[in-house]
Amino acid sequence: MSNANYSGERAPHIGTLPAGPLGTIADVEGVSVGHCTLAEGALQTGVSVIRPHRGDPFADKVPAAASVINGFGKSVGLVQVEELGTLETPIALTNTFGVGAIAQAQIRAAIRANPRIGREWPTVNPLVFECNDGYLNDIQALAVTEQHFNEAFDAASTDVASGAVGAGRGMSCFDLKGGIGNASRVVNAAGRAYTVGALVLANFGRLPMLTIDGTPLGRVLAQRAAGATTVNAANVTHAAAASATADKPEQGSIIMIVATDAPLDARQLKRLSSRAAAGLARTGSVYGHGSGDIALAFSTAYTVPHGADRVTLPPLVADHCMDPLFRACADSVEQAIVDALWSAESVTGRDGHRRVSLRDSAPDLVQLLKTPEQ
Amino acid sequence: MSNANYSGERAPHIGTLPAGPLGTIADVEGVSVGHCTLAEGALQTGVSVIRPHRGDPFADKVPAAASVINGFGKSVGLVQVEELGTLETPIALTNTFGVGAIAQAQIRAAIRANPRIGREWPTVNPLVFECNDGYLNDIQALAVTEQHFNEAFDAASTDVASGAVGAGRGMSCFDLKGGIGNASRVVNAAGRAYTVGALVLANFGRLPMLTIDGTPLGRVLAQRAAGATTVNAANVTHAAAASATADKPEQGSIIMIVATDAPLDARQLKRLSSRAAAGLARTGSVYGHGSGDIALAFSTAYTVPHGADRVTLPPLVADHCMDPLFRACADSVEQAIVDALWSAESVTGRDGHRRVSLRDSAPDLVQLLKTPEQ
Amino acid sequence: MSNANYSGERAPHIGTLPAGPLGTIADVEGVSVGHCTLAEGALQTGVSVIRPHRGDPFADKVPAAASVINGFGKSVGLVQVEELGTLETPIALTNTFGVGAIAQAQIRAAIRANPRIGREWPTVNPLVFECNDGYLNDIQALAVTEQHFNEAFDAASTDVASGAVGAGRGMSCFDLKGGIGNASRVVNAAGRAYTVGALVLANFGRLPMLTIDGTPLGRVLAQRAAGATTVNAANVTHAAAASATADKPEQGSIIMIVATDAPLDARQLKRLSSRAAAGLARTGSVYGHGSGDIALAFSTAYTVPHGADRVTLPPLVADHCMDPLFRACADSVEQAIVDALWSAESVTGRDGHRRVSLRDSAPDLVQLLKTPEQ
Amino acid sequence: MSNANYSGERAPHIGTLPAGPLGTIADVEGVSVGHCTLAEGALQTGVSVIRPHRGDPFADKVPAAASVINGFGKSVGLVQVEELGTLETPIALTNTFGVGAIAQAQIRAAIRANPRIGREWPTVNPLVFECNDGYLNDIQALAVTEQHFNEAFDAASTDVASGAVGAGRGMSCFDLKGGIGNASRVVNAAGRAYTVGALVLANFGRLPMLTIDGTPLGRVLAQRAAGATTVNAANVTHAAAASATADKPEQGSIIMIVATDAPLDARQLKRLSSRAAAGLARTGSVYGHGSGDIALAFSTAYTVPHGADRVTLPPLVADHCMDPLFRACADSVEQAIVDALWSAESVTGRDGHRRVSLRDSAPDLVQLLKTPEQ
Repeated sequence: MSNANYSGERAPHIGTLPAGPLGTIADVEGVSVGHCTLAEGALQTGVSVIRPHRGDPFADKVPAAASVINGFGKSVGLVQVEELGTLETPIALTNTFGVGAIAQAQIRAAIRANPRIGREWPTVNPLVFECNDGYLNDIQALAVTEQHFNEAFDAASTDVASGAVGAGRGMSCFDLKGGIGNASRVVNAAGRAYTVGALVLANFGRLPMLTIDGTPLGRVLAQRAAGATTVNAANVTHAAAASATADKPEQGSIIMIVATDAPLDARQLKRLSSRAAAGLARTGSVYGHGSGDIALAFSTAYTVPHGADRVTLPPLVADHCMDPLFRACADSVEQAIVDALWSAESVTGRDGHRRVSLRDSAPDLVQLLKTPEQ
Repeated sequence: MSNANYSGERAPHIGTLPAGPLGTIADVEGVSVGHCTLAEGALQTGVSVIRPHRGDPFADKVPAAASVINGFGKSVGLVQVEELGTLETPIALTNTFGVGAIAQAQIRAAIRANPRIGREWPTVNPLVFECNDGYLNDIQALAVTEQHFNEAFDAASTDVASGAVGAGRGMSCFDLKGGIGNASRVVNAAGRAYTVGALVLANFGRLPMLTIDGTPLGRVLAQRAAGATTVNAANVTHAAAASATADKPEQGSIIMIVATDAPLDARQLKRLSSRAAAGLARTGSVYGHGSGDIALAFSTAYTVPHGADRVTLPPLVADHCMDPLFRACADSVEQAIVDALWSAESVTGRDGHRRVSLRDSAPDLVQLLKTPEQ
Repeated sequence: MSNANYSGERAPHIGTLPAGPLGTIADVEGVSVGHCTLAEGALQTGVSVIRPHRGDPFADKVPAAASVINGFGKSVGLVQVEELGTLETPIALTNTFGVGAIAQAQIRAAIRANPRIGREWPTVNPLVFECNDGYLNDIQALAVTEQHFNEAFDAASTDVASGAVGAGRGMSCFDLKGGIGNASRVVNAAGRAYTVGALVLANFGRLPMLTIDGTPLGRVLAQRAAGATTVNAANVTHAAAASATADKPEQGSIIMIVATDAPLDARQLKRLSSRAAAGLARTGSVYGHGSGDIALAFSTAYTVPHGADRVTLPPLVADHCMDPLFRACADSVEQAIVDALWSAESVTGRDGHRRVSLRDSAPDLVQLLKTPEQ
Repeated sequence: MSNANYSGERAPHIGTLPAGPLGTIADVEGVSVGHCTLAEGALQTGVSVIRPHRGDPFADKVPAAASVINGFGKSVGLVQVEELGTLETPIALTNTFGVGAIAQAQIRAAIRANPRIGREWPTVNPLVFECNDGYLNDIQALAVTEQHFNEAFDAASTDVASGAVGAGRGMSCFDLKGGIGNASRVVNAAGRAYTVGALVLANFGRLPMLTIDGTPLGRVLAQRAAGATTVNAANVTHAAAASATADKPEQGSIIMIVATDAPLDARQLKRLSSRAAAGLARTGSVYGHGSGDIALAFSTAYTVPHGADRVTLPPLVADHCMDPLFRACADSVEQAIVDALWSAESVTGRDGHRRVSLRDSAPDLVQLLKTPEQ
C-alpha cells in the first residue's frame, strides 16, 4: 500500500509501461524506506531514509550518480558521489535546515557500524538531500535531530508510505500539499526484465503549471480559485494562498531518487538520473530558478566492497540498450510526483498556513483523472 | 511567414505565453537565418545558418552557453563556448558528416573578414551543430560543401522558413518528417518585456512517444499504422517504416538554439539553455540514448569586442527574475518542435526511404489540434 | 605578521611576482579571517572563518566559483555556488565531521541577521569546507560546535595567523605538521594593479613528494628518516610515522580559498580557481585519490544585492587579460602551502600521535631554503 | 628510439618511477603511433595518429575519458566521449584549421571499414585534437588533407618519433621549438605492474616560465636572451622572438594523450586524465588563457564491442589503489613535455619565423641537466 494517508484509489497510471507489484521504490529488490514524521503545531517536518540494501552501505558501497538539474539546493554528499560513483550511507531526506543534524546522525551511525572510520579508515560521506518546507513548517526552529534520523532508519521497510509523511510532511507542490511520492516501472532491457523505482520529495511548482498525464489541471484550478464561484472551504483557502503567492517565484525543490536492479556503472547511472528531468517537465516544471531539482540514481545489481583492491562488476547493460530504462525513469518520476499529490492529506502548520490536498481541492477533477484499467 | 513548405494554418499555440510577431527566432531583434537546401534524389540535406547579429561575430562576440542534455553528438565548438562564454562565428547546422566541411567554411569566412586570425590573432572557434539525416539522405556521400555554407549565410534574413529546408531537409522526427522549427515568446522579466526565440533542428523520437500539447498523438498514430484499417498511401508507407524500425533505438538528435534580447551573462545563459530540456520532454522525448540533444542559448543584449581589455555589461536580469524566461524557453522549444512537424512536407530520399509529414499522415488529427484563437 | 606560531623569518618567496604588504589573504581589501582553536589532549581541531567583506554576505552576495580538483570531500554549499555564482555566508573551514555543526551555525547566524530567511525569503546556503584531521584529532568526538564558529567569526581581522591554528590545528601535510597557510601576489591586468590572496587548509601529501620551490626536499627527508643516521627525537618520531604510513594512501585534503579585488564574474572566477591546481602540483601533489582538493575563488570588486531585480557589474577584466591573475593564483597557492608548513609548530594529539613541524624536522634544510631577498 | 630528430642522449629522467623499455606511449601494449610531416617553406605542419589497439576501434571501442583543463580549444569528439566513455576512432592530432579535414578523413576511414555506418548503424564520432601552429606554419593555407591522415595512419608503429614531426612539426613551446613528446612509467597498483604512457603535442608556454625537473631554466634563458652577452645566431634569433612576444598572451595549447593497460572504467579514466594537469604545471604552465589544455586517457585492458547488448569488464583496479597510476600519469606527462623540447630540432617556417630548439638555444644548460643514471 503506497498511500498511507489516503485510503482510496491510486492515481491514474502514467504512460504505457507496467508498474511493479508495490508501485513504490521498494519494487527494486532490497530497497526499503522509513519515515519519521513531526506533526505538532508549527512543526510540520520530518526525515525519510532510503536504504539501498539490507546491509551496511559503508562496507558494501552502492554504485550511484546524480544529476543537478537546477542547483538551488543545499544537499550534502554529492561532490564525492560525483568523484567516486558510489554512495556509502543510506540516503536521507529532510528539510533544508535539518541537513547538518542529519549529516551528523549519518556520521555517527556509520561510526557505530565501522569504528575504524576517521581512525585507520577514511571518513564517511553522509548523503542528505533537502527541500525547503518553510511555508508550513517553522524551519527556523531547526527541529530535526539525530533521533529522528535513527527512528526513520529503524522504521525502514518495503511497505513504503507516500504523502505528507517523513521529510514530505511540510512540503508544498504546485501550491497544493506535496510530499513523498512513489512509483515503479518494469521494462525489458538487453533481453531481461528490470525494475526502475522512484521516490520523490516533491516541493516545487506554482499551481497554474500543474499538468497531470498531459492535462493542464493547474490552469483550471487556478481559474477556479481566482473566480471561486463555487465557494467552499478548500477553495477559499486555496484562492487566498494563490493570490498571496501569485507573484512570488518558486522557493521549492524536488529530490528524485531512482533505484534500479539493472547492472549499470556510475557513468550510466548518471545518464539514467538525468532522465528524471523529463518526467519532472511533464508535470509542468521548467526547473524554476528557486527550485533545487536534483536526481540521484543507484543500482542494486552489485556492490563495491570497502577496501577491496579490485572491483568486479557483473556484465553491464550496454548503453544502446538503455532506452527502456530511460523511459522507465521518466515515467516513474512523473508518476511519483502525481502520487505525492494524490496521496497527501491537507495540512495546516506554522502561522495557520495551510496547503490543501489535490483531492480536497478538486475532488471532481480528480474523479475525472481516475483510470479504472491497469 | 514561418512555414515555407506549408501554405496553411499555423500549429496550435502551446501554453499561455504570447508569441512574437513573426513566431520565429527572428523575433529577437538582430537575429537572422538562412538556409541552403540540397534536394536531389538520394541527396536530401543542407545547411542552415543563424546569424546572432548583423555584424561580424568574431569582432563582436556574443554571450552564449550550451547544455548537453544527451551527448551522443558530434557538434564542434562547444569546448570553447563552455570556457569563454561567447560564440564568435554564426551558428551553423548541417548533417553529421558535413561538420568538417562546414567548420572549414566557417574558418575561411572568419579569415576573410579578419585576415589576422591565425597570424597575430588567435584562431577562430567554428560553431557547427549536426543531426544524422542518414535515413533519407545519402550521408556517406559527404555532399555538403563550403559553398553551401556560403549560400546559407548569404540568404540570411528575418523571413525564416521552417520545415524540410536547410539542414532540416533530410531529418526525421517521431518517424515522421522533421526538420527546422521556429517559435518565440514574449515575457516580462525584471519589469521589462523580453523576447525568447527558438530554432530547432528536430530529428529525434519514435512515433509512439509523440505528444503535442499534452495529447499523446503518437500512440494513436502508431496504433492506426499498425492496424492500417484505412489503407492509403501514407498509412502504408508509414506502417512499413514503423514495423521496420520498431525495435531500433533512436539514431536521431535535436539541436535547440535559443536566442533572447534579455541581458544575461554566460552562466545565466547556461541556465536558460538547460530549460530547453523541459520543452523537449513535453513532446515525448526521454533524451534517448542515440539522440544528441544539445541546447545553446545566446543573448543579443550586448557583445564582447575582440581584443578589448575590459568588458562592459548592461545591468543583468537578476537570477531570481529568470523564471519567465525559463518558461519562455521551454514553451518556445516545445512550440518549435511542433512547428517543425507541422511545417515539413513529406520527403522521399535515399533508396526510396520516405518520411510522411504529420499533415499527410494524420490530416484528421491535425484538424483536431488546430486552435483558431491566438 | 602572518605566522602566529613562529617568531622567525618567512618562508622563501616563490616565483617572481611581488607579494602584498601582509603576505596573507587579507591583502585583498575587505577580507578578514578569524580562527578558533581547540588544543586539549586528544582534541586538536578548530574552525576558521573567512569573511569576504565587512558586511552581511547574505544581503550583499559575493561573486564566487569553485573547482573540484579531486572530489573525495564532504564540503557543503558547492551545488548552489555552481548554479548561482555567488556565496552568501562567510566561508567556514573545519574538520570533516564538524561540517554539520558549522553548517547549522552558519544558518543560525544568517537568520539572526536576516530573520525573513526561511520565511518570506528563500533559505540560506551555508558554505563549509573540511579536511580530515583524524590522525592528530579525535575526530569521532564531533567536538566542534556552533560556539566555535561564532568565536572564529568574532575574531575575524586582517591580522591573519597561519600554522597550527583554527581548522588547521590538527592537520597534517606531507607527513609533517600542516594547517593554515597564507600568501598574496600583486599583478597588473588590463592596465591596473590587482591583488590575489590565498588561504589554504593544507592536509595532504606523503613526505617523499614534498617539493619546495622546485627542490625535492621530501625525498631527502624521507631518506634521512629511513636512515636516521643523526638520531634525535624529531627524526625518530618522524621515521616511525613514515614507516607506519608508507603504504597507506593519502587520507588528507586541501582547501584553497582564493580572493581577488579584480572585477571578474563567476565564470571567470571558476577559471581562476582552477589555477590553484597548478600551484598545488608544484608542491608535489598529484591530487591523490583520498585527498579532497577543492579551490574556491571570489571577487571583492562588487556584490550582488539580495532581492535586486537587476545586477550591475563593473567593467570586467577581459578573459585574454587574465594570465597575470592565473599566475598570481598559482603562485599564491604554492606559497600558502609552503607558509602552512613553515608556520606550523609540532603538535601531539590523539593516542600520542605526533606531527613534527618542517622546522623541527629539518632545521638545516630549512636554513638552506631561506631567501634573504624579498 | 624515441627521438627521431636527435641522435644524442635522452632528456633527464623526471621523478623516481621507472620508465618502460621504449620510453614512449607505445610501451602500453598494442598502442602505435604514426606521423605525417609537412615541411616545405611556409608549410610546417602535419598529422599524428595514435592507434589504441591493432584492430578497428569502431568495432571494438576503447574506454576513454577526457579532462578539459582550459577549454580554449577546437578539438572535436569530446562531447560523445564524455557521454559514452569510449572512443571509436584512432586519436588524430593536427593543427587547428586542419580539424575539419581530418575529421572527414576519420569518417571516411571508418565507413570504409564499416560500410553500415550512417546507414543501419549510427554515425561515427571522429576524435581530432589540435594546437595552433600559426607562428611557424601558414595555418591559413588549410594545407592538411585526408591524404595526410591516411599516411599517418598507415605509418603507425611502435617505433614512435618525438620532436618536430607529424602534428608537432610547427608547434612552439615556451618560445622554443615544441612538438611531439613521449614518455612512460611502470607502476604497481592493486598488486600488479601496469604501464602508463603519454604522448603530448606541446605548443604552450612563455620562455620565462619553463621549468625542467624543478629547475627554472626559462628564467635563465630569458635573462640570457635579454642580455645576449654571448652573441650567437641562436641567441639573437631567440632574443628577437622573446622581445617581440614578451607582452603577448599564450596562443598555444597542449594535448596530452595518456594510455594505460590498467583495467579502469571511464569514470576512473577521467580521474586519471585530470592528473595530466599536475605534470603540466610542474613544467611551468598555469594553464594560460589562450592555451587549450586537454588530456584524454584510455585503457587497453578491454574493449566494448559495437552492438553487443552486454559489456563485460575485467576486474577493475579499485579507486583507492589508483595513486600509483596518478603519479605515473603526472610524471609521464611532465617527462613527455621535456621530451618534446629535448627532441625537437630548430625549425624555420612562415615569413622567416624561427623557433630554436632547446639544445641549440642552451647547449650548456642542457648539458647540466643530463642525468647519466636511469
